Amino acid sequence: MKLGFIGLGIMGKPMCRNLLRAGYEVTVFNRSSGAMEELREDGALPGASSADVASKSDVVITMLPNSPDVKDVILGRNGVLEGAKRDLIIIDMSSINPLASQEVCAEAEKRGCYMLDAPVSGGEPKAIDGTLAIMVGGKEEIFQQVEPILRAMGSSVRLCGGIGAGNTTKLANQVIVAANIAALSEALVLGRKAGVAPEIIFEAIRGGLAGSTVMNSKTPMMLDGDFDPGFRIALHIKDLANALDVGHGVGAPLPLTASVMEMMQWLRANGFDQEDHSSLIRYYENLAGTDIRRS
Amino acid sequence: MKLGFIGLGIMGKPMCRNLLRAGYEVTVFNRSSGAMEELREDGALPGASSADVASKSDVVITMLPNSPDVKDVILGRNGVLEGAKRDLIIIDMSSINPLASQEVCAEAEKRGCYMLDAPVSGGEPKAIDGTLAIMVGGKEEIFQQVEPILRAMGSSVRLCGGIGAGNTTKLANQVIVAANIAALSEALVLGRKAGVAPEIIFEAIRGGLAGSTVMNSKTPMMLDGDFDPGFRIALHIKDLANALDVGHGVGAPLPLTASVMEMMQWLRANGFDQEDHSSLIRYYENLAGTDIRRS
Repeated sequence: MKLGFIGLGIMGKPMCRNLLRAGYEVTVFNRSSGAMEELREDGALPGASSADVASKSDVVITMLPNSPDVKDVILGRNGVLEGAKRDLIIIDMSSINPLASQEVCAEAEKRGCYMLDAPVSGGEPKAIDGTLAIMVGGKEEIFQQVEPILRAMGSSVRLCGGIGAGNTTKLANQVIVAANIAALSEALVLGRKAGVAPEIIFEAIRGGLAGSTVMNSKTPMMLDGDFDPGFRIALHIKDLANALDVGHGVGAPLPLTASVMEMMQWLRANGFDQEDHSSLIRYYENLAGTDIRRS
Repeated sequence: MKLGFIGLGIMGKPMCRNLLRAGYEVTVFNRSSGAMEELREDGALPGASSADVASKSDVVITMLPNSPDVKDVILGRNGVLEGAKRDLIIIDMSSINPLASQEVCAEAEKRGCYMLDAPVSGGEPKAIDGTLAIMVGGKEEIFQQVEPILRAMGSSVRLCGGIGAGNTTKLANQVIVAANIAALSEALVLGRKAGVAPEIIFEAIRGGLAGSTVMNSKTPMMLDGDFDPGFRIALHIKDLANALDVGHGVGAPLPLTASVMEMMQWLRANGFDQEDHSSLIRYYENLAGTDIRRS
């Protein structure tokens, strides 16, 4: 199968590299050309537009910031559906509103194409290692055809339900990650103010019931004040906005998500929204008038 | 070293069993005698009072519900200090307010005794397996003398600082556990309402950044509606009250802890406070008018 890959950002670039490494022929397209040049050195073929990529591919993967970008790249001028052959399979791996996935899928099917939504979790390190968790929504027979492609990028690949179920699952994931980062921050700043070093708290509790992947991966960044993304606050704000939108729509109140959203708005208002989401600790440090950096 | 053990509840009983299994001679005392009879079958010697236990021991371990119980058992009539020989080491493994630990320690030292605070995390299953995380506060030379005893009950044993540092660390732990349970609940109910089965969400995201010990241990209980403790809501309310008390005292605002405290108050008001803390999901199920039980 010939692949197309559109969207070569922090996540898309290493994901695409893993497909090339697995031996796939991949035609790529990105709004800015720098990333395309980089991937050409890894063996990717540069495309002229999203439509051009689609015309050369059996399967097109998109990895874009949010719902409007996906609609534009797939449904817009020079978009995927303009160049698509019949039976093209679109795998949208962006994290977007599941209602948008359903809308785009309906348009794709009108043109004789198929679509899966397949957002990921794990951030840049797992994108590089090819160990992402991939949450898929769509038809089972389409999923089975492309599962080996997904397994080149992720170590956990799951069909969660019909179209949109991948993004619903991803939103559940993002709700948990956001609140777990906030809880970790709240606890470490409490410890610091009460006289116990945050690095000691980390070592003492990581093996117990409070242990989490968030704790293991974010605490060292917080202790070092190293907030290089990783996963940007700006993108997490986008995800929480989608979660709250879906929650309001289906009647699932999300009180912790709403609280953490307001904390992230504080970070945005103070110019920290391009930092990794672990910089949420800044909100708590500001509240308490301290910081938790290693001494 | 001859040991004493006071407080044979859900946690204390299996912890004491692990000491007996490790070959220690242990004299035990508990307010109600049933647990003492059970442990006698495992080789424990029954004591007549806390003072009696102390008089027969080089090290006395206490495992009690909250600060007033610890003060009563150690400082009160027929208490540990009444029976204590000089140089007795008291290890209070209860989860209490760190200010109370400091107060009791000061009294113990006046009587020529030593004290460590050493609360645990991991709940009943890890108490049974002897794999608790044990967070210790107190003098290093005392810690070193009793570390092998602690290692018979826990797989992670850490000195976190001076007296009270164990409980401060434990409060940080409990803040994280409470918020992680709430976040998990919030996400699973969102998924259910948006049409994705909670068990599928669990399997899809547990390997990614949202993964946690809380998720792995509590999701199956939530799916089964099996809220046998484990760790009771009533005790978690006690811990959050202590965390908020310390936070207010040292100037560390705890907004998520305050929110989850109110959720747990709803559980108490509705008669669920003797259930495992995973029953926090009931708050969200009630909010959204659904449940997440396996179909």
